[in-house]
Amino acid sequence: MDTTKQTPQSVGIVATQYAHLFTDEGSSLALDCEATLAPVQVAYETYGHLNADKSNALLICHALSGNAHAAGRHHEDERKPGWWDNYIGPGKPFDTDRYFIICSNNLGGCDGTTGPSSINPATGRPFGLQFPMITIADMARLQKALIDHLKIPKLLAVAGGSMGGMIALQWALDYPDALQAVIIIASTPRLSAQNIAFNAVARQAIMVDPNFNGGDYYGDDVERPVNGLALARMIAHITYLSEKGLHEKFGRQLQDRKQLSYGFERDFAVESYLHYQGSSFVKKFDANTYLYITKAMDYFDPFPDPETTTKRLQKVTARLLVVSFDTDWRFDTSRSKELVKLLNWHQKNVTFEQFHSIHGHDAFLIDDPLYMESLGSFLKRLHMESRHPHKAALFKP
Amino acid sequence: MDTTKQTPQSVGIVATQYAHLFTDEGSSLALDCEATLAPVQVAYETYGHLNADKSNALLICHALSGNAHAAGRHHEDERKPGWWDNYIGPGKPFDTDRYFIICSNNLGGCDGTTGPSSINPATGRPFGLQFPMITIADMARLQKALIDHLKIPKLLAVAGGSMGGMIALQWALDYPDALQAVIIIASTPRLSAQNIAFNAVARQAIMVDPNFNGGDYYGDDVERPVNGLALARMIAHITYLSEKGLHEKFGRQLQDRKQLSYGFERDFAVESYLHYQGSSFVKKFDANTYLYITKAMDYFDPFPDPETTTKRLQKVTARLLVVSFDTDWRFDTSRSKELVKLLNWHQKNVTFEQFHSIHGHDAFLIDDPLYMESLGSFLKRLHMESRHPHKAALFKP
Repeated sequence: MDTTKQTPQSVGIVATQYAHLFTDEGSSLALDCEATLAPVQVAYETYGHLNADKSNALLICHALSGNAHAAGRHHEDERKPGWWDNYIGPGKPFDTDRYFIICSNNLGGCDGTTGPSSINPATGRPFGLQFPMITIADMARLQKALIDHLKIPKLLAVAGGSMGGMIALQWALDYPDALQAVIIIASTPRLSAQNIAFNAVARQAIMVDPNFNGGDYYGDDVERPVNGLALARMIAHITYLSEKGLHEKFGRQLQDRKQLSYGFERDFAVESYLHYQGSSFVKKFDANTYLYITKAMDYFDPFPDPETTTKRLQKVTARLLVVSFDTDWRFDTSRSKELVKLLNWHQKNVTFEQFHSIHGHDAFLIDDPLYMESLGSFLKRLHMESRHPHKAALFKP
Repeated sequence: MDTTKQTPQSVGIVATQYAHLFTDEGSSLALDCEATLAPVQVAYETYGHLNADKSNALLICHALSGNAHAAGRHHEDERKPGWWDNYIGPGKPFDTDRYFIICSNNLGGCDGTTGPSSINPATGRPFGLQFPMITIADMARLQKALIDHLKIPKLLAVAGGSMGGMIALQWALDYPDALQAVIIIASTPRLSAQNIAFNAVARQAIMVDPNFNGGDYYGDDVERPVNGLALARMIAHITYLSEKGLHEKFGRQLQDRKQLSYGFERDFAVESYLHYQGSSFVKKFDANTYLYITKAMDYFDPFPDPETTTKRLQKVTARLLVVSFDTDWRFDTSRSKELVKLLNWHQKNVTFEQFHSIHGHDAFLIDDPLYMESLGSFLKRLHMESRHPHKAALFKP
């Protein structure tokens, strides 16, 4: 029995809500690719309470495989709580005694927000690859529409790890008046050639699966490209963990055997673990979403040249906290430093912290007292600053 | 026109030869898995001339995707020379003016040596997955049989990079009287959990390809598991290059376009490059060989515990040169150091050199003056020592 269920710090039982946006005649979500989407459904959850002056709202942005269910449980027997439950709750860094926390499933997702598995109103069938190409800026744009819908004029902060950090950065660039701060964790201002290469192989694995069928695999009697999607996840999962973390967890330990099989069974524990990761992922994730989201990450590049960078950063007023982990090789610390350097160069109010962890990229999801303390105190200072603006000068650089 | 063809340092036109071993009634190659193979064909090439006292022979061991064709060209118009042509030839580190160089296709290979695509004498059909599981020690054992067949009592050195380095190390452990030295480049005494994980995903990619058909896909009218094998190669290829090398070569450069496609085409040059690597590999490589060879690497672990290590290293008399490259993350420098530490602890005659390169794991194949000089001078000293044994004391530790 999982005892975390009973911990007093849990937000308890939560429910996903659904906003129906762009339902008015003529309104639509305008995308970077110049297509539009309407209507758009957004799945979201909230934790804590919005205060009277609406000054305590935080938006959490999820990463590739996340969803709106960031904390608590949907029912008593839910096996696992939301994906960032250890960070969101009473007394936790994202403290629901202080803040009103919102997390929505990203545009293009497969957990309640409009994406390639949604019904295309033009055809009455799932979009599949007819879904328009989306970008990180499009994801932020839809979140902004949700925040407007919730009638919150200004967020205390937008926070996210990995791809969620890219979305948070995009918020700082595009909606300077709608937020006070952003928290960018284990992220990068752009994918490297190696990152793109890993994404390309993952997409190839999905697209060569014979059940992929050009993205048209929805329907009860249709086989889905589970082999390809499982491979994509296995490849990605290796990049989420540090070499050292994998070594400490598995080493060369055999799985359920004392001797090598001298056959093609899974001899090593690390093989079984990876296969488990792949096969459990395909039960909850849509292959087309994987294609769209990895492409959105590939395309993300807000600072392609000095001129654009200057133009974009001129508008940024948010305070920024950038966090990295020393064994993260998916988005190495140097990528966070690259961003911090740009922000410092443009005299932005940025704080950078690197934490030690053995967990590689996944460290942003895992309990760590120092990292927790850093997030918590950054938010507390922000919150105090918003309530006592005359003290704000204390926190300026 | 490739001008390297005309360089005076080429070994020129070469031909692959074939040895037919274990052809006598009752003789066979005994494998670690306790199966036996007979007869066994070995494809090999030689460069340079064996001297009168047979003291100048070098054995080169190839890596996963290599073959017996290490230097020269098979005919004037061959597009590329052998895989280590820049290192083998007159005046090169593996100097064919001094040494008689042998390179054979590994056991389990698909380029002329008996492997899963060979005919199983018991059935008259290709082995497929009926081929016995093979190990690095089995590969060395077959090479030893070839060297015996060539009537060479003692090799000056056995050298190899990556998996070739594992085979070279195995030679030092198993055939101390049959060699003077080993050169182990960009290699490791055992795969890490991360290495095994990458191999596991590559095998999974092959085995879920519907054309894999349990390894039974030979025959002219049969589709081969090319999609799975291409994926396996793409995944592995990422690990052969350093992040920095990929960045310098491709960065975020687009392929044949000025703008993002906003579709699932290959937008980035690195994607096209990887796809090219995958699709060209499947033309020359057998998927079953890929399965067997990666499994042999996973299994390689000559020093599983202190007792076995001591027992094995007691027998080692060879001088050892261990070489690593600073940006190699497939087999990090720390893995070479781990081996060197063991060898030093057991008072073996070992030299270690780490070279700087931007090329990651692939650096062992690429021209580098310092690395070339190191290989060349190690071999020259060995050769001098073998010809003037009274001077050998000069080189003892």
